[in-house]
Amino acid sequence: MEIGSASGVMAGFFTQGRRWLNALRVKFKAKVADTARNIKKVGQDDPRRVIHSLKVGLALALVSIFYYYQPLYSNFGVTAMWAIMTVVVVFEFSVGATLGKGLNRGMATLLASALGVGAHHLANLSGHVGEPILLGSLVFLQAAISTFLRFFPKIKARYDYGLLIFILTFSLISISGFRDDEILELAHKRVLTIFVGGCACVIISIVVFPVWAGEDLHNLIALNIEKLGNFLEGFGDEYFKRTGDAGSKDDKKYLEGYKSVLNSKTGEESLANFAAWEPGHGRFQFRHPWKQYLKVGTLARECAYRIEALNGYLNADIQASSEVRSRIQEACTNMSIESGKALKELSLTIKKMVQPSSADSHIENAKSAAKNLKSLLNSGLWEDTDLLKVIPGITVASILNEVVKCTENIAESVHELASKAQFKSVERTVSPEKLHSGQPQNIKSAQMVNCSHVVVSVKESTMAASPSEISSAPKGIKHNMEV
Amino acid sequence: MEIGSASGVMAGFFTQGRRWLNALRVKFKAKVADTARNIKKVGQDDPRRVIHSLKVGLALALVSIFYYYQPLYSNFGVTAMWAIMTVVVVFEFSVGATLGKGLNRGMATLLASALGVGAHHLANLSGHVGEPILLGSLVFLQAAISTFLRFFPKIKARYDYGLLIFILTFSLISISGFRDDEILELAHKRVLTIFVGGCACVIISIVVFPVWAGEDLHNLIALNIEKLGNFLEGFGDEYFKRTGDAGSKDDKKYLEGYKSVLNSKTGEESLANFAAWEPGHGRFQFRHPWKQYLKVGTLARECAYRIEALNGYLNADIQASSEVRSRIQEACTNMSIESGKALKELSLTIKKMVQPSSADSHIENAKSAAKNLKSLLNSGLWEDTDLLKVIPGITVASILNEVVKCTENIAESVHELASKAQFKSVERTVSPEKLHSGQPQNIKSAQMVNCSHVVVSVKESTMAASPSEISSAPKGIKHNMEV
Repeated sequence: MEIGSASGVMAGFFTQGRRWLNALRVKFKAKVADTARNIKKVGQDDPRRVIHSLKVGLALALVSIFYYYQPLYSNFGVTAMWAIMTVVVVFEFSVGATLGKGLNRGMATLLASALGVGAHHLANLSGHVGEPILLGSLVFLQAAISTFLRFFPKIKARYDYGLLIFILTFSLISISGFRDDEILELAHKRVLTIFVGGCACVIISIVVFPVWAGEDLHNLIALNIEKLGNFLEGFGDEYFKRTGDAGSKDDKKYLEGYKSVLNSKTGEESLANFAAWEPGHGRFQFRHPWKQYLKVGTLARECAYRIEALNGYLNADIQASSEVRSRIQEACTNMSIESGKALKELSLTIKKMVQPSSADSHIENAKSAAKNLKSLLNSGLWEDTDLLKVIPGITVASILNEVVKCTENIAESVHELASKAQFKSVERTVSPEKLHSGQPQNIKSAQMVNCSHVVVSVKESTMAASPSEISSAPKGIKHNMEV
Repeated sequence: MEIGSASGVMAGFFTQGRRWLNALRVKFKAKVADTARNIKKVGQDDPRRVIHSLKVGLALALVSIFYYYQPLYSNFGVTAMWAIMTVVVVFEFSVGATLGKGLNRGMATLLASALGVGAHHLANLSGHVGEPILLGSLVFLQAAISTFLRFFPKIKARYDYGLLIFILTFSLISISGFRDDEILELAHKRVLTIFVGGCACVIISIVVFPVWAGEDLHNLIALNIEKLGNFLEGFGDEYFKRTGDAGSKDDKKYLEGYKSVLNSKTGEESLANFAAWEPGHGRFQFRHPWKQYLKVGTLARECAYRIEALNGYLNADIQASSEVRSRIQEACTNMSIESGKALKELSLTIKKMVQPSSADSHIENAKSAAKNLKSLLNSGLWEDTDLLKVIPGITVASILNEVVKCTENIAESVHELASKAQFKSVERTVSPEKLHSGQPQNIKSAQMVNCSHVVVSVKESTMAASPSEISSAPKGIKHNMEV
């Protein structure tokens, strides 16, 4: 009996064990599949990430020649380490960020080395007891002051990394100078190896599939305006349910693209900071008006706040009565569609870097629709209507009116951008086919923004960003933590 | 004649020169005064910045003992440099950020050292030709893979710095191993000096006037909700101009405090990331529900979007007619003030970490005001009114209705936070004097939020954050660039 029950227990134990193992295997498989999907997604969202990873590997492998190649190693020895360090720390996703960090690191090292050597000489003069005290106070003082400087917003935006390196280099050189009289050689080697490492980063990041922060900013702003336009183009139909309920879920997902615009401020600002470091590239001059993009971005965000309010009415429990709706439908839909079209126009002109022209006519249309609505509301039609049933519809109309104003503001600032950045002017008589001939990558982006009704022609061939670059622009941003 | 004219020219030149010098002096003086004002402002905005700067100086001066103190220096030699480097790079504004970076750096160094030593052994086995090839490929591979991993949002948020240090340490150790057979000693020294540097940072940042990211997040969320409440409390009066136009400019500035809430997402998220690294401190346990703060923050932002729309109507050109206004004034003002009071209540309960109670009654009041407005609109009063004149007023009422809903959502999530974080429950019978007795710093913050009509009593004495800490919370955030 006892043996039987014991074997029963054992069998139960094994069954349980097998079940547990099976569950574990299933879980593990799911986990692996999940991870694989995740990896694929991160790569597909922005294929430039994969390339960037390979570029970092390449730069490191190149710089490690310092160690492998005997003549170089006998010259630099352990200080070759600084070259490797520089590569790991300076190589960023975009050219602008890499250049900014490289220049910050280089300049700060130069300055701090010079001051560090000076501090060392000064300390040497002050005798055996005074030396550590003087050096200690100098290190304390410069660290405290530099750290405090890092809190100034303007300095933080552009020279944060430089100040960090300044503290580091000054401390290392002035203190190590306490022991080492070859201090000048140390400083010299450090500057040289950092220069080599920085150059490797900058050259590879510019030459091998460069990622320009400026271009990313340009595309991001254009994409954000396009997203607002998409919402507005779809909003009228969605609110007045002309399309029926079928497929409305997909529609709504499509409509919610604007949500990313609400929180785009930080990303835009860091891209603009990086872009300021970049030399001229592609369609962009060296002193391209990046700050104007931030202005356009701010206005786009303000428009997005209004759209967020509109979106609330899409999903509100209380809707306007169908009678009211049908009355204001035409004017509201026109306001929404026309300002949507204007925004998409503006987005397209930014993308193509041409002077905005037909956007203004859409804005005029939107404004006249707003006027129509006004006179409609002013008419005697409403005397017998229940006010409570009118409210949601009227609120939507009123917010749409605000949106039209926002669109006007955006158009104005895009005009300003166009004149500051000297966008090309456009002929309005050439057929769309002519516009796209010989520019296969333009066709796709033009289709994407669905603007085939506009007849624009770019006078010179412009290199348009491919859709994949545009759609992934906001994702590869910010990458600023280091050694 | 010629001499006369020449001397005239000379005199003119000198006069011009003097003028120019004078202008330069005035300009220089203005610049200096401006800079001084700037410095003062940065320090006054958050006095903790000055303390942080001194702390960094102190930590550096302490760690440099590695160089001054002979027995230590003879042990560590040049590797003492790593300790200084660690301090410069790891010491961040908040304890959480410092701890996170220190742990990342420590763990990554340990792991990468072990793997680097392994790679070195493996390379040693593969002969004179195979060694550099194998090492080069290993460095390339690990750098590429680690860089790619840094693109995963979750990894980026918490382990970005660790991955960077992993790439760095692995490369340094495996490659330098190519030359140096004392590789184990190098790895050992590097780990030890980094440990010492990291400990110095963590200890100083915790012991000397600690800045807790968790507390900052807590105060920031409370402050943001308070700002929304401030707007709503003032909005009714401002819109219906009960206060008259005098002093309205100051009022408006006061009203625009909510604008900072619109773009607070990034700051909140980084604070929450830092807070997750922090041990229990003050009123916060180790596993305080920081993520719930982010939820509250998101809802507050959604409310801020509505408020932004409301604010547009404050400054709109077309206003509702005074007749319409006077009719809806009472209900609208009540909705606005009551939801404002509810938000300020909620802010106060977060600050004091007590269960929200009286906020609900304010929300009920706001809801009943909304109902009143509804029946008012439903009444026959409006049949003779011009619809166009009603619109702005009605839109404001409708958006206020949305704001009331947002307030309800915020209250719900604050309730959730209170139960998750086990906020203390409140007696509602004790006089306000009792609440404030013995807690001088509480009085100020309670006055600040102007809630003297609420009779709350905290069962245990709680340490309230001083107003200066609260108001400066959002400013000292983000500080993440390094060597």
